[in-house]
Amino acid sequence: MLTSLDNPNVKALLKLKKAKERKKENKFIVEGPHLVKEARKLNLLIEAFSLEEKEGYTALSKQIMDKIAETDTTVTEIGLCKMIEKSEITNKLLILDAVQDPGNLGAIMRSANAFGFKTIVLGEGSCDIYNPKVIRSSQGAIFKLNFINANIVSFLDKIKDFDVYGTSVINGIELDKVKKNEKIAIILGNEGNGISKDVFDKLNKNIYIPMENTESLNVSVAASIIMYKLR
Amino acid sequence: MLTSLDNPNVKALLKLKKAKERKKENKFIVEGPHLVKEARKLNLLIEAFSLEEKEGYTALSKQIMDKIAETDTTVTEIGLCKMIEKSEITNKLLILDAVQDPGNLGAIMRSANAFGFKTIVLGEGSCDIYNPKVIRSSQGAIFKLNFINANIVSFLDKIKDFDVYGTSVINGIELDKVKKNEKIAIILGNEGNGISKDVFDKLNKNIYIPMENTESLNVSVAASIIMYKLR
Repeated sequence: MLTSLDNPNVKALLKLKKAKERKKENKFIVEGPHLVKEARKLNLLIEAFSLEEKEGYTALSKQIMDKIAETDTTVTEIGLCKMIEKSEITNKLLILDAVQDPGNLGAIMRSANAFGFKTIVLGEGSCDIYNPKVIRSSQGAIFKLNFINANIVSFLDKIKDFDVYGTSVINGIELDKVKKNEKIAIILGNEGNGISKDVFDKLNKNIYIPMENTESLNVSVAASIIMYKLR
Repeated sequence: MLTSLDNPNVKALLKLKKAKERKKENKFIVEGPHLVKEARKLNLLIEAFSLEEKEGYTALSKQIMDKIAETDTTVTEIGLCKMIEKSEITNKLLILDAVQDPGNLGAIMRSANAFGFKTIVLGEGSCDIYNPKVIRSSQGAIFKLNFINANIVSFLDKIKDFDVYGTSVINGIELDKVKKNEKIAIILGNEGNGISKDVFDKLNKNIYIPMENTESLNVSVAASIIMYKLR
């Protein structure tokens, strides 16, 4: 059982709490038995760790586990996984312009997977997809999607054959009236500021979700309603 | 400026971090200028506190503010508010069977307000609506809704004239085929466990949201898609 914070394996795991280190090592950590199982199934698992001594797992003390796990203090298993690049551009794209809350990003991934938006484009300033809270709230959807990190303005030039829609609370096409084309890209903006000006200026079509008042919705909710409707 | 944690006003504010105390005192705290403004407009504000000395505010030191504020360390204003009971049963009801994540509950309130589900029934084990993180993520929607704390099984006996729908990933009526009746109640379950068995056993109609696979959605997303569709 690993019990020392000075153990090199433990040190290597702790390093992966930082996005920069994850990127450098091409590795990330998943928390909880469900995700460890998923990662194993998909051949992404490098090593699994558990509080208990059991087959297929390296045992860790509770103290070490609590240092590594980010989501809560009752994590019983974690998995060290390798990143694999899947950056295919599918026919249904979701473009996120600096969505920053890990819970929101995870919920968006879950919906994107459920509604067939198999590629997510992450603009600059977006939350790291390998953040443990993102992975946890994605409930494994992270393993099933393609991700592209890009400057959104430049990326838009590459998908000229797509119907690209921004989202706006003020005006645009009512969601119910949007045509379901084969190639669709939807852009969602940051929680506080919406879509950034340079991206917004490139758009000539925006979707709005009809509401009883002009208040806005949570970004993961807005993204999901649109994907549900245009799936 | 209030600078001491021993100041009785500061002590009274700190007590309100606990749900039990909020309930006893019938008071709660909102964080951030937007919510303080909303509370003032709606006559719910007892006293406002700010890091700066300014009219209409009692000044607080940064140290005290950080002790009181829950959502993050950059809160510049908080408001002490009174609870008012609004427990009207409107024609569109959302019933939450132990939704526990504050972010989810706040996002649900925001959508409920946007789509005209003006009453939320909270079953036992639900997250406290006056939790500062709930209030923050509700973006003020909390001020515009009716809330009823109830045992859901008993509550269902009171709304026999409603079309009551549970939610299920396995089977039920496809969301697109649900009739938009005037009186509709939708039940959403706990993040991990869904709708509890005793509630589920009382239901004869369930809605499912069509997805590409049998995975489930985040509860605030599922609630919002259904409300959007049945608004």
